Amino acid sequence: MIRNVSILGVGQMPVANHESLSLRNLAARACRAAMADAGVAHVDAIFVGNMLSHEMTGQSHLGPLIGSALSDGSTECVTVNAACGSGGAVVRLASLAVASGAYDVVLAVGVEKMVGRCRDAVIRALASAADFEREVSNGATFAALNALLMQRYMYEYNAIRLDFAVFAQVAHQNATSNPNARLRGGCSLEAYLTSKMVAEPLGLYDASPIADGAAAVVLGNDRHAARNEKRVDIVGSACATDTLSLQQRSNPLWLQAVEESAHAALDQAGLRHSDVDLLELHDAFTIMSALSLESSGFTPRGTGTRFAREQGVHRNGALPISTFGGLKARGHPVGASGTYQIVEATLQLRGEAGPNQVPSASVAMTESIGGSGATAVTHILKRTA
Amino acid sequence: MIRNVSILGVGQMPVANHESLSLRNLAARACRAAMADAGVAHVDAIFVGNMLSHEMTGQSHLGPLIGSALSDGSTECVTVNAACGSGGAVVRLASLAVASGAYDVVLAVGVEKMVGRCRDAVIRALASAADFEREVSNGATFAALNALLMQRYMYEYNAIRLDFAVFAQVAHQNATSNPNARLRGGCSLEAYLTSKMVAEPLGLYDASPIADGAAAVVLGNDRHAARNEKRVDIVGSACATDTLSLQQRSNPLWLQAVEESAHAALDQAGLRHSDVDLLELHDAFTIMSALSLESSGFTPRGTGTRFAREQGVHRNGALPISTFGGLKARGHPVGASGTYQIVEATLQLRGEAGPNQVPSASVAMTESIGGSGATAVTHILKRTA
Repeated sequence: MIRNVSILGVGQMPVANHESLSLRNLAARACRAAMADAGVAHVDAIFVGNMLSHEMTGQSHLGPLIGSALSDGSTECVTVNAACGSGGAVVRLASLAVASGAYDVVLAVGVEKMVGRCRDAVIRALASAADFEREVSNGATFAALNALLMQRYMYEYNAIRLDFAVFAQVAHQNATSNPNARLRGGCSLEAYLTSKMVAEPLGLYDASPIADGAAAVVLGNDRHAARNEKRVDIVGSACATDTLSLQQRSNPLWLQAVEESAHAALDQAGLRHSDVDLLELHDAFTIMSALSLESSGFTPRGTGTRFAREQGVHRNGALPISTFGGLKARGHPVGASGTYQIVEATLQLRGEAGPNQVPSASVAMTESIGGSGATAVTHILKRTA
Repeated sequence: MIRNVSILGVGQMPVANHESLSLRNLAARACRAAMADAGVAHVDAIFVGNMLSHEMTGQSHLGPLIGSALSDGSTECVTVNAACGSGGAVVRLASLAVASGAYDVVLAVGVEKMVGRCRDAVIRALASAADFEREVSNGATFAALNALLMQRYMYEYNAIRLDFAVFAQVAHQNATSNPNARLRGGCSLEAYLTSKMVAEPLGLYDASPIADGAAAVVLGNDRHAARNEKRVDIVGSACATDTLSLQQRSNPLWLQAVEESAHAALDQAGLRHSDVDLLELHDAFTIMSALSLESSGFTPRGTGTRFAREQGVHRNGALPISTFGGLKARGHPVGASGTYQIVEATLQLRGEAGPNQVPSASVAMTESIGGSGATAVTHILKRTA
């Protein structure tokens, strides 16, 4: 149970190729934007979510790196790594720090720099989030693992590739009006169907683009939140894990960690699935969108793609997802993506989502995933009445 | 302020070359030992401290890796990275999780596998904890940075190399009776003085050995602690940071983060320096022992080596340090070292340190450092009356 933790402010950098910005400055700019949005000049501690800085930039130990760029003080600054779920995990650990009473106001920032390294190096580095002994040493990459999941899904549930197009199309459509998105050109059905195969049946438009990015949130306890009119409360927060490797799971199409964290977060919040107005899910691949909808409990097994088509996951649908483009089109700077989700959900709940606004949104769920569902971090955010 | 968090049990693996043990199993064994010691069959969450698993073993995402080795459940498992201070930081974040009310009983494990990779790869990987842009890109390694500090210390305070021998000798002496230590052969004055230079004036016996290792602690809230007769309370916990690079500090011989975290932890505990019965400090290099004694406030600037000689840092001295050999001789599996310190301090306070026992120890301080003092995590442990 997390008590009395609210989001006081948010900030984000565009997901893009930030060739001329160091990781330090990329993160610092997102942090300063969040602090300005929160109206605070000082934070008590900084928690950094990151997966790959060492491999991509030669720099680890990001806490002091970013902390000293932001202040002269000697603020606690620690890095949290939950692979591609780091951006969600860092907000959760920062929330726990506030809930513990240790701090009044803290900053959580997710940051990743991935552009500029050769593709193979990036693919290899990302694969470290899978099970090295059981998967990676046999040649598996995340595209390959997700292709296997997609193939299995099509076999088990009698689905076809076309069924997944809805996830790509909705995400890309939402990204067209998000100035911070990496891919703003939309995705026609023809483009989806004729795009080149990455790992059959997974095509180019089934996968998310890597990129540089940083997103930050300022969290505060109830004393600080009381003075902040645009605050959004964290009413549910949970993290669960599963085996790293798919082969160890009784059913690879069931994301147990997603199920457990989503239900735990809803229980904390005292809310039901029908109360959730929008879901920022971890659509690193279209298959993950379907599996997330099912494992979170929004729709029965095997019906994720049908749910998306029939109930609607677009902005005015029954359950809007990826409202600013998701990992799929806003982009997936891996250690930052989970923080982007929380920033975007906050903007939705504050009614500041502009052309991307989901009408009357008062409860949002975010789901940040590491590996093939090995880590899942779910947050439920609620607008103050 | 951390409320009501106690150490219910501890476990450790020998610091050694564990060629035949995977990181997963190395960590799991330390965890199981800690759980057995605590008398618990289940923990609510697992926090992992690690710096280099990706670079050394190709495996990141250690939370689910270790979590699924320990249980079938879907426990929260997240990794904390504060470079060489990860082993202290992970205990702190796990403590905050308990203090927040989110969990009753959690496990914090520090783990590192470093042996078996070529020396240059290890040195390069370790250097990622320094400032890449300002230090590493100019060729600095941690041995080089510590040699510069040692040289500066000798110049500023009119010290000679011999003055540092006390730190090596005490640590190696204490390690002779620690079956979990990496170097158990002692260190004569002659060996210290005639050992080969690593980076002048820093010789072989001024530096700590890398190694594989894992250490774990089970933490619980007061409800669980009340049932545990050998519990040790965490009465102070603080983390502070400084600039990553030495060149940005007004005085490189002053570890500001150590000063701030030590004083904050003492304040929380309501204790004074004179109440501290033993100090597990971060003696990765002998110069860090001197700087730690001074920056923590146990002795004035420039008097660390004299304090060690005159007051005594051996087992029966005024302030015993590195009581099981320290990083210097027990060994320095980087992401685990801070957790070993807490395990060892706990054994001291429980009176279970065997031949290494510090007489009548009731308060211990541990200091885990990342980089050249860029991160400092201080804990104060106290025996239950």
